[in-house]
Amino acid sequence: MRKAVVLLSGGLDSATTLAIAKQGGYICHALSLAYGQRHSAELAAAMRVAEVLGAAEHKTLALDLSVIGGSALTDARIAVPKQPSAGIPSTYVPARNMVFLALALGWAEVLGAQDIFIGVNAVDYSGYPDCRPEFIRAFERLANIATKAGLEGRPFRIHAPLQQLSKAEIIRRGLSLGVDYSLTVSCYSADSRGRACGVCDSCRFRKLGFLEAGIPDPTPYY
Amino acid sequence: MRKAVVLLSGGLDSATTLAIAKQGGYICHALSLAYGQRHSAELAAAMRVAEVLGAAEHKTLALDLSVIGGSALTDARIAVPKQPSAGIPSTYVPARNMVFLALALGWAEVLGAQDIFIGVNAVDYSGYPDCRPEFIRAFERLANIATKAGLEGRPFRIHAPLQQLSKAEIIRRGLSLGVDYSLTVSCYSADSRGRACGVCDSCRFRKLGFLEAGIPDPTPYY
Repeated sequence: MRKAVVLLSGGLDSATTLAIAKQGGYICHALSLAYGQRHSAELAAAMRVAEVLGAAEHKTLALDLSVIGGSALTDARIAVPKQPSAGIPSTYVPARNMVFLALALGWAEVLGAQDIFIGVNAVDYSGYPDCRPEFIRAFERLANIATKAGLEGRPFRIHAPLQQLSKAEIIRRGLSLGVDYSLTVSCYSADSRGRACGVCDSCRFRKLGFLEAGIPDPTPYY
Repeated sequence: MRKAVVLLSGGLDSATTLAIAKQGGYICHALSLAYGQRHSAELAAAMRVAEVLGAAEHKTLALDLSVIGGSALTDARIAVPKQPSAGIPSTYVPARNMVFLALALGWAEVLGAQDIFIGVNAVDYSGYPDCRPEFIRAFERLANIATKAGLEGRPFRIHAPLQQLSKAEIIRRGLSLGVDYSLTVSCYSADSRGRACGVCDSCRFRKLGFLEAGIPDPTPYY
């Protein structure tokens, strides 16, 4: 069995991704980032999800992106939009997925793992540039230039199994793998008990996904 | 005047890079990483260097890479080699420059800066894969795919002005720009007063650089 590093935010997509990696036969090392996000409910969710889905290990790395700010997710003074917006919304966190993947890559190299999973999606998403297939491909290329393992012929593969799925398809896939979505927190503005606002971009995509999949939404809303 | 983000470790190379960026007319925003390195003397040096060389701003971001470990610089159980080694030495920190550049990129995007400076060198160096020109080029390409600014036609440029210089050339260049190298700490195993071991890879390259440049070495050794 091969090891993989799986980025795990505690939301719906990354939980599904962990279940897919697990089903693919990988020993899963889950990585969460305490990056200064607005609430810690998603990190608590990541811990539950890692345990229930049987990750071999789960680490949470602290990295305070509020030092940099510039996003509604990392600067408390910027409000999370309650309406869909044109273009890339203010919840975009500059370079976030690059930082997260680079950290996953570093851990993978230390573990001797060559596979990294990330739950990015470019169908029902907010248009973040670092969720697109072009980004994932270019990152993989860079990973194999940047590392000792890459140079020595043990290339890394970046798996983004949700990339081309709709939210409804992701939900169906996860349910078929036994994911309990009531454990996950997707909301940008969740309260301390993990209850969701129901109106942010992330909530909207999630809500619509359950609706389209014809599956009762287990999300607690406040 | 344009803004630039300059990665500043507190060592000889990054201090020279800051001086070069400054001379190039940039308003310099210096970024240091408290990444779990063996000592904080280099971070103290970075603060001094940023001030003396007139950085507009200096931020230190905490990111505990010892959670990942795997390097003599981030795992206290792995000794820093006191002899040159064949191949990439154990001081290699997997994905370090990718993580640092990604954070610099994030900050640059928030600041509206398009220029990022890093003091990597591929001449008198330890063979780290993420110091090579191929890496810098591939990172720049990724930066412009990963970000909103890149997509919207405000491309980032990654400047690595020391890339092809010998250590002696770097030192001469820095001195011509007024860099006071007695403020910098390059040693992997510096003591709390910033004094250097004189035998680690980083010390060796630095020592030889002063020797080849024919300039008295201002480094305090213990």
